Amino acid sequence: MSSHSSKSAPHPLDPLTVDEVQAASQALRQKIGCAPNDIRFKVIDLAEPPKALTLRHLHHNGPRAASIQGIPFKSKSNPSQVKLLKILLELGLTAALNGPAPDRKARVYYHLKKSQALLIAIVNLTTKRIERLYDAPESQGPVDWHEFELVNRACNNHPAVKAEVAKLKLPPNARVLNDPWAYGTDDAKERRRLFQCYMYIALNDDPQANHYSLPIPLAPIFDAHTLELVELQRLPMGTGDELDPETQPWDPVQPVEYSAEILGEDAFRKDLKPLQVVQSEGPSFRIFGRRVEWQKWSFQLGWTLREGPVLHDVQYDGRPLFYRVSMSEMTVPYGDPRTPYHRKQAFDLGDSGFGMTSNSLSLGCDCLGHIAYFKGVHVTGDGKPMVMPNVVCMHEIDDGIGWKHTNFRNSKSSVVRNRQLVIQCTATVANYEYILAFVLDQAANLHIEVRATGIVSTMPIRQGLSVPWGTVVAPGVLAVNHQHIFCARVDPILDGDTQNTIAYDECHPVIDEPDLDPYGCAFKVNTTAIDRPGGYELDITKNRTFKIINESRTNAVSGKPHGYKLHPVPSQMLMMGPKTFNFRRGIFTSKAIWVTKYNDDELWASGEFTNQSREDTGLAIWANRSENVKNEDVVLWHSFGVTHVTRPEDFPVMPIEKFVMSLKPTSFFELNPSNDVPRSNQSENKSTLHTVGPETCCRSSRI
Amino acid sequence: MSSHSSKSAPHPLDPLTVDEVQAASQALRQKIGCAPNDIRFKVIDLAEPPKALTLRHLHHNGPRAASIQGIPFKSKSNPSQVKLLKILLELGLTAALNGPAPDRKARVYYHLKKSQALLIAIVNLTTKRIERLYDAPESQGPVDWHEFELVNRACNNHPAVKAEVAKLKLPPNARVLNDPWAYGTDDAKERRRLFQCYMYIALNDDPQANHYSLPIPLAPIFDAHTLELVELQRLPMGTGDELDPETQPWDPVQPVEYSAEILGEDAFRKDLKPLQVVQSEGPSFRIFGRRVEWQKWSFQLGWTLREGPVLHDVQYDGRPLFYRVSMSEMTVPYGDPRTPYHRKQAFDLGDSGFGMTSNSLSLGCDCLGHIAYFKGVHVTGDGKPMVMPNVVCMHEIDDGIGWKHTNFRNSKSSVVRNRQLVIQCTATVANYEYILAFVLDQAANLHIEVRATGIVSTMPIRQGLSVPWGTVVAPGVLAVNHQHIFCARVDPILDGDTQNTIAYDECHPVIDEPDLDPYGCAFKVNTTAIDRPGGYELDITKNRTFKIINESRTNAVSGKPHGYKLHPVPSQMLMMGPKTFNFRRGIFTSKAIWVTKYNDDELWASGEFTNQSREDTGLAIWANRSENVKNEDVVLWHSFGVTHVTRPEDFPVMPIEKFVMSLKPTSFFELNPSNDVPRSNQSENKSTLHTVGPETCCRSSRI
Repeated sequence: MSSHSSKSAPHPLDPLTVDEVQAASQALRQKIGCAPNDIRFKVIDLAEPPKALTLRHLHHNGPRAASIQGIPFKSKSNPSQVKLLKILLELGLTAALNGPAPDRKARVYYHLKKSQALLIAIVNLTTKRIERLYDAPESQGPVDWHEFELVNRACNNHPAVKAEVAKLKLPPNARVLNDPWAYGTDDAKERRRLFQCYMYIALNDDPQANHYSLPIPLAPIFDAHTLELVELQRLPMGTGDELDPETQPWDPVQPVEYSAEILGEDAFRKDLKPLQVVQSEGPSFRIFGRRVEWQKWSFQLGWTLREGPVLHDVQYDGRPLFYRVSMSEMTVPYGDPRTPYHRKQAFDLGDSGFGMTSNSLSLGCDCLGHIAYFKGVHVTGDGKPMVMPNVVCMHEIDDGIGWKHTNFRNSKSSVVRNRQLVIQCTATVANYEYILAFVLDQAANLHIEVRATGIVSTMPIRQGLSVPWGTVVAPGVLAVNHQHIFCARVDPILDGDTQNTIAYDECHPVIDEPDLDPYGCAFKVNTTAIDRPGGYELDITKNRTFKIINESRTNAVSGKPHGYKLHPVPSQMLMMGPKTFNFRRGIFTSKAIWVTKYNDDELWASGEFTNQSREDTGLAIWANRSENVKNEDVVLWHSFGVTHVTRPEDFPVMPIEKFVMSLKPTSFFELNPSNDVPRSNQSENKSTLHTVGPETCCRSSRI
Repeated sequence: MSSHSSKSAPHPLDPLTVDEVQAASQALRQKIGCAPNDIRFKVIDLAEPPKALTLRHLHHNGPRAASIQGIPFKSKSNPSQVKLLKILLELGLTAALNGPAPDRKARVYYHLKKSQALLIAIVNLTTKRIERLYDAPESQGPVDWHEFELVNRACNNHPAVKAEVAKLKLPPNARVLNDPWAYGTDDAKERRRLFQCYMYIALNDDPQANHYSLPIPLAPIFDAHTLELVELQRLPMGTGDELDPETQPWDPVQPVEYSAEILGEDAFRKDLKPLQVVQSEGPSFRIFGRRVEWQKWSFQLGWTLREGPVLHDVQYDGRPLFYRVSMSEMTVPYGDPRTPYHRKQAFDLGDSGFGMTSNSLSLGCDCLGHIAYFKGVHVTGDGKPMVMPNVVCMHEIDDGIGWKHTNFRNSKSSVVRNRQLVIQCTATVANYEYILAFVLDQAANLHIEVRATGIVSTMPIRQGLSVPWGTVVAPGVLAVNHQHIFCARVDPILDGDTQNTIAYDECHPVIDEPDLDPYGCAFKVNTTAIDRPGGYELDITKNRTFKIINESRTNAVSGKPHGYKLHPVPSQMLMMGPKTFNFRRGIFTSKAIWVTKYNDDELWASGEFTNQSREDTGLAIWANRSENVKNEDVVLWHSFGVTHVTRPEDFPVMPIEKFVMSLKPTSFFELNPSNDVPRSNQSENKSTLHTVGPETCCRSSRI
């Protein structure tokens, strides 16, 4: 074990520990000096150190050295240099070479009872000092579970709400529930902190009874600070905006359930046989703190309340690739113009947080094989650290064939299987689930995969009616069409250099050049380097391919610059026009590709505070600066997603829709990086053969 | 076991048996009456029976009955009707209800020594009569292994070729090899049967020595009928078309190898631990002859020399979906205008055949878990049936989470894993591999997956040079940029009705309707039914989604027609213009979607004979007919692929590029079809937990 890995200080990019969360809340409390009940904590998360300091600390002597930080050294650099560094490392003298560890800092969002303003503190945990203390009265912070619960209770217990519910004349066994939703934006002057409480009933006490199958036409609005009812909004049951003159008695209907208990044993198919993944020699990964090593990859597994898992300092074979890879934002605008649905637009990272809403996973349900789990830390309203166990899982999968060639002259085959490492979380944002995974493979590809599942957001509709805005997915249940648009952020440091360029290749036919191309079959690859920040579009008709290149390093074989290319997810962008709040709150939704110059703290596509936001304070500003991004410290953003036209097949819980974007090397290596993967063989794989059994007939028709 | 499954006659859509191939060649030989050596067989394959006859035979009494054909009945039709049919079935009396079995027929391609014309026979195996006997002197049949070997030998042994090789002054251990390539087309008058023999050397006797890493600048053209050298074409080594005045001595270089033997043990990564899939209770599929049942799916597994695996009579839960699903064609035009590369355009199904070139798979290399294999039958040049063992494999895989929902109020989760059935083949077309798979899942989705791998086609280039047409992937080795464009064919019979419509949905914002949509957030789904055959384009900006609908059946929940939608692979289409041979030989490459009215025998996108073709005789004709396709027997075709800009990372064997198109139900079911899948649980999955081991440090930084 290296001296590095026995240090007790966390890695500069590690999430805050329990002790650090505790220290941050204590330090802030002391500084403010208020009574314990006068402060309510929302979020305490790592305030990441400046990139420049961190790189100096981690990569003291060029990129190669980074891989020596406690990690077996595999690359081909100067052996004597490596030896020296190893000795220094063992003697604990690397600080002499590295820059110092940057201070650990916490970013705190909180409220004081006497004020409605969102308050922010930056606490330096190393120096025990409060570095910054400021408010953002024009902004709303993300939802926190404490206020969610307060609003939920306020709605359920409010006499006016209860009186309105009574008009539904629900059966005695009906439980009334509400989901407080991020309010959205339809008024630039609104400054209150509001929640729209969509209401449902359940007719069954089962803990998984599907109340989303029984929406009721009530959606009261509450103020989260005062917990007062702002408006008891009712929902249209017909095809237009108009409401019933009075809330009508509930029209009984059977919910569509997914609970195994409710469905009962007979409802299940009986012919699914077990399939187990056995890794008798253990996994191929190793974990040092939160540093993960797997198949020439290594990375620091970060985690934030906002983003869930984040990959930091990602290297392949000791060569740095990415400083930070993350899901940056995701928004869901709904296409129904009727009040109050016109306001429905969640930013599920900025408003809620993929980490904050992450499931505590349990062994054997989300993954097969050998699973490692990672915890997160959250803060309670009164400032206590709260462990979120198993919010990230990591395991290996077999993805079929990775490469294969058979020499047809002698039928000799070489097959390499496509082993992958999956780092995954499941975020439950009320009704809906996002399964976010970073997937690494042995060909040095990094994939970001999203599986959209869970329960579509449902609204009541009078039985027998339909509207142009969605599909009736169960009797009395409308699932409005909507978009999910994600934005992934990739901060490259190819070969350890912060100077990189985003360029795109296009394939163009050679046209009307009979001397060069008499038969008209030629095409060329045109490369355009991007020198200004901004939003860029995909163009499949030209095979436009965006790539990150390091112009200072040339591949010895191809003569082309070292690069990683993006395999995007071609998607319809936001349909709502530039004047709408939908657009102005998140301009990342309007273009598939964004390029910005790196600045510390520019991590989230729509800006820091998206809840009830009126303007995008992220890419709208950063991508609009007039500055050079060519051969600079540059960041690549990719927006993608789906326009979800709903189907009955999406209910009660929708089968996954999977989206995968990939980063693949192009002239980064001199040959297939997976040429060194041991060939697939039966002595290790131990597959079993299906032999013709008694049920299998027709031997005469088989040969 | 049902009486159906004990019948000895093959299913009408089953591939030809050994006996049938034998009978076909014998019958033809007798009819022609020539000496044994005067006839050379190329292909004997099933001539599929007319769809109308087959459907009458299989689905005698509406779609529901189809599922009774020896298969446990699961759907909800009239129970007394089902009972009656079952009794009839047991008594062997279904023939009284079904139409008669259509005659079994073989399609034979052959040559007579006295003629160069391609000859075709349709042999009726039931009546033992030759039904049709005709020639196609204007066309070339596919490559067959017999002629391939003859051409290969002719080239290797030709004195002029040897004399030219001598000028290379190769080292004594060099083996000279050649790959006869489909000649392509650059002259509408050419009628000879030609092969271009691209030549290479190997410096190692290893059976997997990578000769594609050592191309030599010779590409003689041979006539496959006369085996005469037509032209000893030489290849450019420089940046332009010009040849060296004389073949120059070979410039020595080290090949890039993939052979494990050559690379040696030290070349491999050591940290990959075994991962096994264990299915101790066996697979979830059952096989009756070539009928496969799995998780409510059933289908007849066809196979042809041309297409490899084909799914026939595909049903879900006893409801017919597709009459036939297949990969129909694939073409690879290269973008290098230099002679003779301008002619490089393989049609790897029509010219060679995914079945004909399929690997005989071996247990544990291509798949993990419990594997069933299916054989194919081919014919030798002299008319003997030849078994091709294990050309198709079938197994189950776990694809992670299929759906999940967690009730955030109590953290109770339901997780269904995404079990899939994979039916797969690997076609080795000389240097390159295509792994074609049909993938079924429990949410009633059918995916067609292609993995492109193998060795890119290589050409020599003088060391240190580069050309705009490709990338230098190893010293002296150019891999020219090219496109792979596939065309999948889907012949639907939703709920057993042959009348279906292809329509497309588009999502359009509502624009400037302030009364309806004051905040500008609304969007609508516009549906357009296609009533004329033709080629259609994708449009991601409108989320254009093509779907097959059965207008006569309405979903009781959504009120929308039963449908299956296509999730396409958005791809750059053919770059070569309409006047080029590239375009005219395969117009399927120019549009992503094609719609035609069904006719028997219209199976292959570019027509029956693609080898050296001058014009497309498939979609160019079928999609150009003036006829109604709305609510008709209609066929959907999807063209997709990749423009491959080559990388050193693609050499020696390229890591897979994966393309997946999917057919997914839309208002075909009344709820999520996988709602009945048993929930994932650890007692069955038996995953193992990664506990913190001695290598894992920093407990203080973990919480």
